[in-house]
Amino acid sequence: MSKVIADMSMSLDGFVARPDDSIEPVAGWFFGGDVEVPTATPGFSFQAPAPSADMLRDALSGVGALLTGRRNFDLAKGWGGQHPMGVPVVVLTHEPPSEWRDNKNFVFVTDGIKSAVAQAKAIAGDKIVGVATPDMVRQCLEARLLDAVHINLVPVVLGQGVPYFANLAETPITLETPEVIESQGVTHLTYQVTYPN
Amino acid sequence: MSKVIADMSMSLDGFVARPDDSIEPVAGWFFGGDVEVPTATPGFSFQAPAPSADMLRDALSGVGALLTGRRNFDLAKGWGGQHPMGVPVVVLTHEPPSEWRDNKNFVFVTDGIKSAVAQAKAIAGDKIVGVATPDMVRQCLEARLLDAVHINLVPVVLGQGVPYFANLAETPITLETPEVIESQGVTHLTYQVTYPN
Repeated sequence: MSKVIADMSMSLDGFVARPDDSIEPVAGWFFGGDVEVPTATPGFSFQAPAPSADMLRDALSGVGALLTGRRNFDLAKGWGGQHPMGVPVVVLTHEPPSEWRDNKNFVFVTDGIKSAVAQAKAIAGDKIVGVATPDMVRQCLEARLLDAVHINLVPVVLGQGVPYFANLAETPITLETPEVIESQGVTHLTYQVTYPN
Repeated sequence: MSKVIADMSMSLDGFVARPDDSIEPVAGWFFGGDVEVPTATPGFSFQAPAPSADMLRDALSGVGALLTGRRNFDLAKGWGGQHPMGVPVVVLTHEPPSEWRDNKNFVFVTDGIKSAVAQAKAIAGDKIVGVATPDMVRQCLEARLLDAVHINLVPVVLGQGVPYFANLAETPITLETPEVIESQGVTHLTYQVTYPN
């Protein structure tokens, strides 16, 4: 059964990007080591510290589909037609973009988060559905559809930016004790989510 | 030479307390295990998970002075006359409170953060100066007087509250790769601070 897992890099003050949506300040670790991790994009590899490289390889082979929102899809310009992780992307949107409608790497869903997660799980099969935007994380948490939260915690204080967690209808949300992978310039934390009755 | 180290418990979204200043949501780990750690307050012990208990014992024996602000001092009502850590507290304030002025456990400093840190270091000797309020952390970082940031990272999303890091004059602040102590219901992270030239 497919698991739905949030996965973003975050600053110590909780931000996944600068206010202008640029992720450079928290993404340095992808290129902060000397172990090459190829992506699905020809000629594009990560160069990560060894513990992060192992984690990234597991993530790349373990993910079967991605779930994102229209804003992130547009910011990424559809990743040029295919996401670097090489898996289909389910995009929750009010209106599918006409220029990408026939691309088989993208599935545009217009009838809400539950349908989007169900379709992503169907594509992923036994593999993971990765969620990598704050608004999708919020919607999945609120619908109780998120199984785990993975945080690549980066030792930087940004002061301002786009928060990993924001505007949640119900807080506090209590997670489990994490699995920890120590690396260089980043600490990888995976928290299981257990919903109260 | 005394080191100045920030030390607070923090939620995954960066808060050290609820908006009403209560720290319960991030302080559960102090009582989340079965290893007793006595404090300097008679009859008051922590009951922490083993790895946290070891860390707490080291902290209690390693700290020589604490640095705080007037607001925190007033909220704690002077800890009844002595802080649970059993060390002198240097309080940065505009106006020393008359009711505590003669208590030898407290030193009230009115001439700024540099003077407060210098006096705390003189008291601490070879031991650590602990800093446990966001405003003091901010002032110490801005004055380049903070040597390390210790975060007890608690697996809860609060949604709102008092941030560990806020209102910093200069960001981003880049810290070193942390030392990590895994525990139950908390992950202890210690980041050294290196200031750019």
